Amino acid sequence: MRTEQQYLEGLRDGRVIFYRGERVSDVTTHPSLGVGAAHTAIDFRLADDPAHRDLLLALDPDTQQTISRYFLIPRTFEHLLKRRELIETVTRAAKTTVPLVKEIGTDAMFALMVVTAELGTAGEQYRERVRNFYARCRDEDLTLAVAQTDVKGDRSLRPSKQPNPDAYVRIVEERADGIIVRGAKVHTTNAVYADEMIVLPTRAMGPEDKAHAVAFAVKPNTRGIRFLAAPRGFGMSNAFDNPVSSTTRMVETLTVFDDVLVPWERVFMAGEWQTAGELAKTFVEFHRFTAVSYKTPLLELLVGMAALMADYNGIAKAAHVRDKLVQLVMYLETVRGLTKAAALECQMRAGIAVPGVVYTNAAKYYFAAHYHEMVKQVQDVAGGLVVTAPMREDWENPDTRPDMERYLGGSASATTEQRLRAINLVRDITASDLGGYLELLAIHAEGSLETQKLTILMDADLAPYRDYAKRLAGIPAG
Amino acid sequence: MRTEQQYLEGLRDGRVIFYRGERVSDVTTHPSLGVGAAHTAIDFRLADDPAHRDLLLALDPDTQQTISRYFLIPRTFEHLLKRRELIETVTRAAKTTVPLVKEIGTDAMFALMVVTAELGTAGEQYRERVRNFYARCRDEDLTLAVAQTDVKGDRSLRPSKQPNPDAYVRIVEERADGIIVRGAKVHTTNAVYADEMIVLPTRAMGPEDKAHAVAFAVKPNTRGIRFLAAPRGFGMSNAFDNPVSSTTRMVETLTVFDDVLVPWERVFMAGEWQTAGELAKTFVEFHRFTAVSYKTPLLELLVGMAALMADYNGIAKAAHVRDKLVQLVMYLETVRGLTKAAALECQMRAGIAVPGVVYTNAAKYYFAAHYHEMVKQVQDVAGGLVVTAPMREDWENPDTRPDMERYLGGSASATTEQRLRAINLVRDITASDLGGYLELLAIHAEGSLETQKLTILMDADLAPYRDYAKRLAGIPAG
Amino acid sequence: MRTEQQYLEGLRDGRVIFYRGERVSDVTTHPSLGVGAAHTAIDFRLADDPAHRDLLLALDPDTQQTISRYFLIPRTFEHLLKRRELIETVTRAAKTTVPLVKEIGTDAMFALMVVTAELGTAGEQYRERVRNFYARCRDEDLTLAVAQTDVKGDRSLRPSKQPNPDAYVRIVEERADGIIVRGAKVHTTNAVYADEMIVLPTRAMGPEDKAHAVAFAVKPNTRGIRFLAAPRGFGMSNAFDNPVSSTTRMVETLTVFDDVLVPWERVFMAGEWQTAGELAKTFVEFHRFTAVSYKTPLLELLVGMAALMADYNGIAKAAHVRDKLVQLVMYLETVRGLTKAAALECQMRAGIAVPGVVYTNAAKYYFAAHYHEMVKQVQDVAGGLVVTAPMREDWENPDTRPDMERYLGGSASATTEQRLRAINLVRDITASDLGGYLELLAIHAEGSLETQKLTILMDADLAPYRDYAKRLAGIPAG
Amino acid sequence: MRTEQQYLEGLRDGRVIFYRGERVSDVTTHPSLGVGAAHTAIDFRLADDPAHRDLLLALDPDTQQTISRYFLIPRTFEHLLKRRELIETVTRAAKTTVPLVKEIGTDAMFALMVVTAELGTAGEQYRERVRNFYARCRDEDLTLAVAQTDVKGDRSLRPSKQPNPDAYVRIVEERADGIIVRGAKVHTTNAVYADEMIVLPTRAMGPEDKAHAVAFAVKPNTRGIRFLAAPRGFGMSNAFDNPVSSTTRMVETLTVFDDVLVPWERVFMAGEWQTAGELAKTFVEFHRFTAVSYKTPLLELLVGMAALMADYNGIAKAAHVRDKLVQLVMYLETVRGLTKAAALECQMRAGIAVPGVVYTNAAKYYFAAHYHEMVKQVQDVAGGLVVTAPMREDWENPDTRPDMERYLGGSASATTEQRLRAINLVRDITASDLGGYLELLAIHAEGSLETQKLTILMDADLAPYRDYAKRLAGIPAG
Repeated sequence: MRTEQQYLEGLRDGRVIFYRGERVSDVTTHPSLGVGAAHTAIDFRLADDPAHRDLLLALDPDTQQTISRYFLIPRTFEHLLKRRELIETVTRAAKTTVPLVKEIGTDAMFALMVVTAELGTAGEQYRERVRNFYARCRDEDLTLAVAQTDVKGDRSLRPSKQPNPDAYVRIVEERADGIIVRGAKVHTTNAVYADEMIVLPTRAMGPEDKAHAVAFAVKPNTRGIRFLAAPRGFGMSNAFDNPVSSTTRMVETLTVFDDVLVPWERVFMAGEWQTAGELAKTFVEFHRFTAVSYKTPLLELLVGMAALMADYNGIAKAAHVRDKLVQLVMYLETVRGLTKAAALECQMRAGIAVPGVVYTNAAKYYFAAHYHEMVKQVQDVAGGLVVTAPMREDWENPDTRPDMERYLGGSASATTEQRLRAINLVRDITASDLGGYLELLAIHAEGSLETQKLTILMDADLAPYRDYAKRLAGIPAG
Repeated sequence: MRTEQQYLEGLRDGRVIFYRGERVSDVTTHPSLGVGAAHTAIDFRLADDPAHRDLLLALDPDTQQTISRYFLIPRTFEHLLKRRELIETVTRAAKTTVPLVKEIGTDAMFALMVVTAELGTAGEQYRERVRNFYARCRDEDLTLAVAQTDVKGDRSLRPSKQPNPDAYVRIVEERADGIIVRGAKVHTTNAVYADEMIVLPTRAMGPEDKAHAVAFAVKPNTRGIRFLAAPRGFGMSNAFDNPVSSTTRMVETLTVFDDVLVPWERVFMAGEWQTAGELAKTFVEFHRFTAVSYKTPLLELLVGMAALMADYNGIAKAAHVRDKLVQLVMYLETVRGLTKAAALECQMRAGIAVPGVVYTNAAKYYFAAHYHEMVKQVQDVAGGLVVTAPMREDWENPDTRPDMERYLGGSASATTEQRLRAINLVRDITASDLGGYLELLAIHAEGSLETQKLTILMDADLAPYRDYAKRLAGIPAG
Repeated sequence: MRTEQQYLEGLRDGRVIFYRGERVSDVTTHPSLGVGAAHTAIDFRLADDPAHRDLLLALDPDTQQTISRYFLIPRTFEHLLKRRELIETVTRAAKTTVPLVKEIGTDAMFALMVVTAELGTAGEQYRERVRNFYARCRDEDLTLAVAQTDVKGDRSLRPSKQPNPDAYVRIVEERADGIIVRGAKVHTTNAVYADEMIVLPTRAMGPEDKAHAVAFAVKPNTRGIRFLAAPRGFGMSNAFDNPVSSTTRMVETLTVFDDVLVPWERVFMAGEWQTAGELAKTFVEFHRFTAVSYKTPLLELLVGMAALMADYNGIAKAAHVRDKLVQLVMYLETVRGLTKAAALECQMRAGIAVPGVVYTNAAKYYFAAHYHEMVKQVQDVAGGLVVTAPMREDWENPDTRPDMERYLGGSASATTEQRLRAINLVRDITASDLGGYLELLAIHAEGSLETQKLTILMDADLAPYRDYAKRLAGIPAG
Repeated sequence: MRTEQQYLEGLRDGRVIFYRGERVSDVTTHPSLGVGAAHTAIDFRLADDPAHRDLLLALDPDTQQTISRYFLIPRTFEHLLKRRELIETVTRAAKTTVPLVKEIGTDAMFALMVVTAELGTAGEQYRERVRNFYARCRDEDLTLAVAQTDVKGDRSLRPSKQPNPDAYVRIVEERADGIIVRGAKVHTTNAVYADEMIVLPTRAMGPEDKAHAVAFAVKPNTRGIRFLAAPRGFGMSNAFDNPVSSTTRMVETLTVFDDVLVPWERVFMAGEWQTAGELAKTFVEFHRFTAVSYKTPLLELLVGMAALMADYNGIAKAAHVRDKLVQLVMYLETVRGLTKAAALECQMRAGIAVPGVVYTNAAKYYFAAHYHEMVKQVQDVAGGLVVTAPMREDWENPDTRPDMERYLGGSASATTEQRLRAINLVRDITASDLGGYLELLAIHAEGSLETQKLTILMDADLAPYRDYAKRLAGIPAG
């Protein structure tokens, strides 16, 4: 197992990152992006922490080696339950911001294993490459990002019909030593903090979209790759005013592939348009399971902030406040319960336990559809001071602190400072750049609300229900 | 195991039932109530059916006898999952109307086992009686009803403060041979079809409510018991117009205890007011799990009817119709998934697996809170003909049938008769006396929406979430 | 002005009505349909009642005669506000069941006036006929029904593409003395109680649908017209158990046109396919305004029943009950307020005040989208006895009445009988055949939810909002 | 009428303002607060603009002078409709951020006129002072803020029971020359930009709260007044990244009264605890009407941004996108329609038209209850780039701009820059510090959701509805 230090060292490899108009020379020491590097390193710190080691590590049945549990291939529903617990626990320790440098990459590898296996002999070569790549990542304890969402251009047009041919990443040349790819992906999370990056197709393809049916792995410092990092969501401010956004970080990039050479042993799909959709979908099923596993700490925090502010404001016994608390608890537990049901109702494919599609998507949809409403409940209990209170500079100014001390206290259960800290937490999580970022994430990360509905409708088999209705209506079957 | 015939025979025991102003002499042959007797007998028919026997029967680990699976004491989460499947399967076979002559009674017995065990030596005598009663019911394959909800009078007053002292069932005398009880219960389901009736307190009691802290079992034909059966919800009509309500039945009664003598060996609580609330609550937890298990076939039918009518009306491809279908599927699967999570997260109490409280109540609340909305979706897809179409007499009248044939057909996927039958099913389930009955049941059976919210708030431990918020805000714990 | 007696006399004209398999000889004395005739006659009773005369009658500015106010052509927003008040008041007096024998007919005539006027000289002949027909109806104080919704067959196909060519009413022959029409309309309300019936197209037509672009007026006893009356929604029962459904009635028919001759002076459109959609839409705008005007008494009753049951159950001070009451009040007032806004923001077309389209449809949509939810609130407050209480026969049976008296009472604010009557009212309105009928009506009468959304999207002009966004974003206009 | 320059000049009067730890010497030139001064001055710019002058100015019937229309006392529903239009129009011109330096102050003065008039002779002295103060403000064209919300301390305790006696502003001494007041108000909007500040009680008071029943007017530079300005919601950034928040501003303050002397002629209530609640409520009714009038431009912008992004992303024809657009339009028009209904149904009190309470509160509640959901719809249509796109510095960097140009474009209807600008606007309004500020404002400004519900329940007269239910149930009245 690698140490935190080894991991961070590995990120200093010349990768090309731009941030707010400037080239970033070292992502681990950059004043803003460095926060994220320290943050994602939590995986390595926890694996080293006796309190968490048993959960973070696992015995690999294939190699009989101790490995990072993220790499453990799920073969039973209990494995999926444990993976859920792993992701939830790490994210909770990471102040609700999932590190996402091992979760998503293993999601992609499991999906590649399933899909290449289901291809039969046609997929044998790819399967072999996936297995080798997986074994190396597992054994070297690497971190991985995934780049899936294409920039898409005009969303009403298919890949091959786009005015800009590179609106979906594509193979521009096949050579003896590999393929040359061109295009760009958006919303790539934490690739700047990963040792490897897996690239997957974003949707089903038709025969004319062949060049866009491409999957592979690359190192982030490969020639031709450029990352344009988004500055949104996390502030540098200070821990008093922004207790979470000042100390954690997630970074999305516009990830540009400027005629990048990918050697054949790293290519997992190259033109098999018939399988592009299945690969995209299978990855997404693993990844939405990851998503609903990492959302719960944030929802626990929503519950906790509402409960805390109810106490501090002296309104914990008001009927409407109790009602809001119970709505928040049900929200949290509905997401968590459906995630467990998704594990329980997994489907075995190629010997791998794939989370139940309907439950996974129902959990994800439920989370996403109600997130804004639940934010509202927290803000409602917290009160208007969340945006009208003075901030740290005033708290530290002897001319103004006495007024704040005197007039911004609440019930006897907290000091004024504690109440202000709680208020600042609510603002940081729900009513700030980070708050807006989390709202967008809720409805767009891991696919939009519409996508989840479509997935459920495709996957749910309505025929038995229709037949049941026929039977009860006295209509012959068929 | 008893046969259907033996079961029905047992109901002809002189029990005192009134229905629509008249005394019912034989509940099995009564033109209206007889439908229900035949319906509840489905438990015995399925136990005898090779296709269902394995699910309906089980090997009792205590006696090594084959028993009705309802009586199998749940000792693992798998037992609860299987019990869920049992209740769902039987209710599906019963056209969505749960028979409820074994489910609820075993819920009550499991709760009595848990609560009397947790009382320690103080409960030893009661525990013994419960065990004996349970063993007899199991071995003789009896059916059981439960009477819990008191009439309550003015709901803003506690039992002992009611102007009518009998607004909650109470002990009016303790004698050497047993207790004399007086009062009445409402909403008692299917007691008229049961061999035994268990009576439980409906709420927590204070010391001054001692006389109301009473639990016992009686035979329905015990002197002093009168049943006033409600006529709502199920019509006698015909299978064309009312395919479900004409062939199934559930009956609620006002169950009057007019100074009924209950021998001591049938008394399970008599004055232990401190335990009344716990018993009521524990029963309800088992019973809400039963409830969310038996709701799913009705929700499957909602999905099925919407899908069928979408086809028959030629609107299956409309985006808004697809959206309604997916909402219905998510509704079904959210209830089902949370029920499975409740089994998975059971709590062991006195060696018995009690379904997880938060998940059970979240499932029940979700079901209840959205039922009307989902009925709306089905009605929306089905169309206005649900209430404006002529009915069977017109369909059979040669003067009018040709007009109906000619003008009431839909898409090519169905004949006019099939479409009318499907429409009639939608009306029967959603827009009729039965439809109204189901709406009320959704929000009142097994406790109101408010009760489920209160239960969740009592059971959920908010402290860890509050502490989590404190930690992230930089507030010291405690 | 005609008297109630004259009106009823006029309905005995040999019209061909079938009901539950039998030909109805006299609609005014028929045991079931006669209830509706007495009910719709309320328009004539109120016009004769000093308490209501000022509202029911109006001075016609054109003729300087006193006319039924329904016929008053709206020329200002105050006229529309008064028309709203008229419809609300009559429906309130009619126990929430709108009589609908003058409202809808005048809606149709106003729409015909507007659309034929906007046709210019092309519509002159039609306009003349409409005016003459209107003048006669007004002067003779006639009642009118409207038949608009075609049977539609496969809804995914246009009129001219239907396998059944008569799935939309059509002209099968043009003759010197008139047109011959064939087909059928569904959901025709109260035509069996009307002196005249106006027939309108149900949708926009294309050139190939020319034969279906037809509008006209006929007397219900015209040769070739048959009514198949739906029996749903209203029970004959008794006033104790069914206080509303036993004494009021609305009747929908399948209205068959079996090669009916319509003389030219009664034809208002015959082949002008370009105008069919505009006529359908304009009628619907008037009629949705009527709809949202007549819904409010039902919503007032929902508020009233919830408030009453809260008192009778002793729960009026519970926070969740108060919350439900305020939700119900807001629901009522949002519908009423938007209706007033629709009047205020009317559009003048051909000198006639047409209710504002967006507000009318927003009111209608809001009503329809939330009706089921509001029914749930009422049922929630009322309690399970709504479907589990014994009924009138038991109340009148001396063997059972004492038990009901003793055990079915609530708080001190009501006798047991009063509580039972209130409970029965809740069941009759929300959990019975009538309850189901009202739910279907809510979402399908006057167009489905989808239709209202489409209408709003067509009518709302988004360009100014888009330009506003551009301006604030710093994007040049255009 | 004053000019913009005269107005700004008036703000340089030595008022004590702190902002982010520093004393502000000149609010009109301060780098951050100065933006707000320029912003609120829009009232004076528009009054001078021929395109808006007719709306901004009015002829005062009392003085026959031209006055700022804000000061026009509403005496008919048309006046209220015009006032609504005034506030909407100015706020639209002000990029959705209401200036609020004349709206709220006139709300307070109208309320003071009504309440002091209703006090009869007891209020004569106060009425006189209010009239004089009003006349001066009107004639000198002054700007006014209102400080109402007390800091409240432990919200479960009444004013006189607070551990901190100053948790509600109070009179600490009555002197010959006036009263001395102590305490603080929170959420005071734009007092730093006003010529005068009116202070009102925040709630109903009991006899023991007498000292807290106080209302008066003060100049912001009065000795003893300190403003601690909140820095939230508006960023200084640049017009590309933050098109709205960088150019508009609203400022809330903690407003401290450190033993401030208020001369008697400026005191409008001093100890009349019986009237405190009525004054608070009446002010709020005027002010919620103002609120729902100024919300609509923001809602127009939500519609506009969604429509624009739908075009730019090439998804304008997707059914779910159209559905979101229509939901947004209905949201906007429901708020606007109910506001118009509130004007139409005004109540005359002391000769002044007070907006209808139920409609005003229903509009406000509807706005507040659904704001987060509507933000979600806009974000859903806009897409994840709202938070993952690079920003202005990258756009201006020649190393990265070509990638952005190439890969961040959408449909042919916009250039990449236009799409980025539109995306930035969406982020600025919905997913930034300003976005969070607007969410909090939606649910807390002008009273919380609970308050609006309580107001409706207090104001709505349920008796007629209850009687209606009784009548239909056959229960005698009374």
